[in-house]
Amino acid sequence: MMQASSIDNTQKLQLSPLDTPSRLLLGPGPSNAHPTVLKAMNTAPVGHLDPAFLRLMDEIQSLLRYTWQTNNPMTIAVSGTGSAAMEATIANAVEPGDVVLIGVAGYFGNRLVDMAGRYGADVRTMTKPWGQVFSLDEIKHQLNTHRPAILALVNAETSTGARQPLEGVGELCREAGCLLLVDTVTSLGGVPLFLDEWGVDLAYSCSQKGLGCPPGASPLTISPRAMSKIQQRRTKVANWYLDATLLQKYWGRERTYHHTAPINLYYALRESLRLMAEEGLENCWKRHQLNAEYLWDKLEGLGLSLHVEKDFRLPTLTTVRIPQGVDGKAISQKLLNEYNIEIGGGLGELKGQVWRVGLMGFNSQKENVDRLIEVLQKVLP
Amino acid sequence: MMQASSIDNTQKLQLSPLDTPSRLLLGPGPSNAHPTVLKAMNTAPVGHLDPAFLRLMDEIQSLLRYTWQTNNPMTIAVSGTGSAAMEATIANAVEPGDVVLIGVAGYFGNRLVDMAGRYGADVRTMTKPWGQVFSLDEIKHQLNTHRPAILALVNAETSTGARQPLEGVGELCREAGCLLLVDTVTSLGGVPLFLDEWGVDLAYSCSQKGLGCPPGASPLTISPRAMSKIQQRRTKVANWYLDATLLQKYWGRERTYHHTAPINLYYALRESLRLMAEEGLENCWKRHQLNAEYLWDKLEGLGLSLHVEKDFRLPTLTTVRIPQGVDGKAISQKLLNEYNIEIGGGLGELKGQVWRVGLMGFNSQKENVDRLIEVLQKVLP
Repeated sequence: MMQASSIDNTQKLQLSPLDTPSRLLLGPGPSNAHPTVLKAMNTAPVGHLDPAFLRLMDEIQSLLRYTWQTNNPMTIAVSGTGSAAMEATIANAVEPGDVVLIGVAGYFGNRLVDMAGRYGADVRTMTKPWGQVFSLDEIKHQLNTHRPAILALVNAETSTGARQPLEGVGELCREAGCLLLVDTVTSLGGVPLFLDEWGVDLAYSCSQKGLGCPPGASPLTISPRAMSKIQQRRTKVANWYLDATLLQKYWGRERTYHHTAPINLYYALRESLRLMAEEGLENCWKRHQLNAEYLWDKLEGLGLSLHVEKDFRLPTLTTVRIPQGVDGKAISQKLLNEYNIEIGGGLGELKGQVWRVGLMGFNSQKENVDRLIEVLQKVLP
Repeated sequence: MMQASSIDNTQKLQLSPLDTPSRLLLGPGPSNAHPTVLKAMNTAPVGHLDPAFLRLMDEIQSLLRYTWQTNNPMTIAVSGTGSAAMEATIANAVEPGDVVLIGVAGYFGNRLVDMAGRYGADVRTMTKPWGQVFSLDEIKHQLNTHRPAILALVNAETSTGARQPLEGVGELCREAGCLLLVDTVTSLGGVPLFLDEWGVDLAYSCSQKGLGCPPGASPLTISPRAMSKIQQRRTKVANWYLDATLLQKYWGRERTYHHTAPINLYYALRESLRLMAEEGLENCWKRHQLNAEYLWDKLEGLGLSLHVEKDFRLPTLTTVRIPQGVDGKAISQKLLNEYNIEIGGGLGELKGQVWRVGLMGFNSQKENVDRLIEVLQKVLP
């Protein structure tokens, strides 16, 4: 034992068993997980190289490809939350000196700028007021100006609720000889996505929004075109944990140990993807759209106005303008503390200006809209 | 909806609900989680900025400090598995050009070498045959030779089962003006650790070994001395997800949103730490030691020999030499497939030479040793 020292108990808390409040999570995520998915978390883990676990990894890969509508062999879940999957795209695709053009119209565009800079990119930005989107003409013009190696766009800007259309962007990128990198954190599972048809080369998402799973294992997909850039890197990927060339050997045929996967989260992710396939992707998208439209009508019925133009609104996340003279934070705290309903506040440019209301995955249900509206009627002045 | 394309169902698997085998995990980790801990995973998530969650983060911080015997304010769980916490120490502490001296006597020493190189370190190594440890004299000599900014040692080498003593190393590092970075992945919770007394500046671990929790949220601690090096960096930390200066603002008083934590894993981690405090750290260490000694006796009783000299054996992980003429892999596959017991094989230099038997956290029980020995008696030739 070799233990001579005595133990310091200063930090030894005596705690009661876990007792957390039961919230309806209608913020920007996490959303409530499907009960079947939650239940899967309470399953004894097997080893990360157990044949039973390797089969489950294959299932996750196939179903992620289905959900994203891609055939990319390199489609996996990263062992971290959505931001880790985001960083995985940047860390792998960017080599120092690469020109990376980033569309910034919200908080997560800025996060891409920060990340790309850390990996030595020559970062160029095109910007729009938060809540707006880029047109094909604007994108084309910027591609011609900057001649980037990578164009990065946020398909679903979680800070604004805007949906950046992607149809046609892939062709522009191919003409310009650059890769297309896309944030689908708040769209996967809830918003139509056709990655292959749209020519998307790198995309990432999370588990706790459209997929209705707890957070912690995050989808990542890389096209063969992008993988070939990665394989031709002059330098090692400057991030060991997220190095796609190593992850590929664990998820692929070699099954080489890389890290210990968060087994129980993969159980949950597998179940959430299975349930989504059971519902059918098209039905799932439709459900999100219909419930969002129902929410929008109801909110406008309360006299509230929505921040994003209807054509570009995300069905998963709605930004509601806080009326003049109303203390937005006081209202959302009242919702949380008195009604156990979480909604989000504004970030960055929209801080204090909007609430963010999510209807994602399992939570995209008409009953949840009714519950929220009923409470809003009570608490709004 | 704007959806003209039709859905490709090639990758749409039709799966049955999750059905995984029930294994006794006596490999190098993950180990089986305590039932109370597993049950905590099946709790509806709250938001990552919910006051109830922020309280839970504080509890995790205190109890991690207790478990590591440190008062470092910057003691948190990283939202990834042990390798992510490992990378967090390197990514934050290393600036390009820093001399980093790494003790390599196993697989995870080599991983530190790989990671430190990716962050631009001038890497120097001191090596030992796998399964041995470094003496204070050897360390002192190497510190004088290389004058590093950081010395990195693996306290518990998961690939060999050797325990690198740390008493006295911190003083040498202070004399040499360098930071001490330590891998405690397979020691935290199972092996006496007194980080502050031993002058350790950076340490990392995982949840799925000594703590008896599923994998996915990983302890990280950084001393004020190391934080001051980090705050004085000339360059941004070259890893956004693991940037301690950003993580500090989420875990500290500011509570600034950084990423969405894997809520349910933090529930589980909190419960595993609570149970450990209930047992008492000293009792927990003692239990690991006694059950390991019981295992060693029994294994030697079967005529098997152990790879590591007794004084430096980890109580959490035992490397057993595969007898001449025995097909080690066939035995471990038989254990898994016929008896639902997982043990590990050798890695790297020890590939094909040893089995790795873990008795960690909840799994460190006399009954588990008896069950393994009974089966080994049957399957060994």
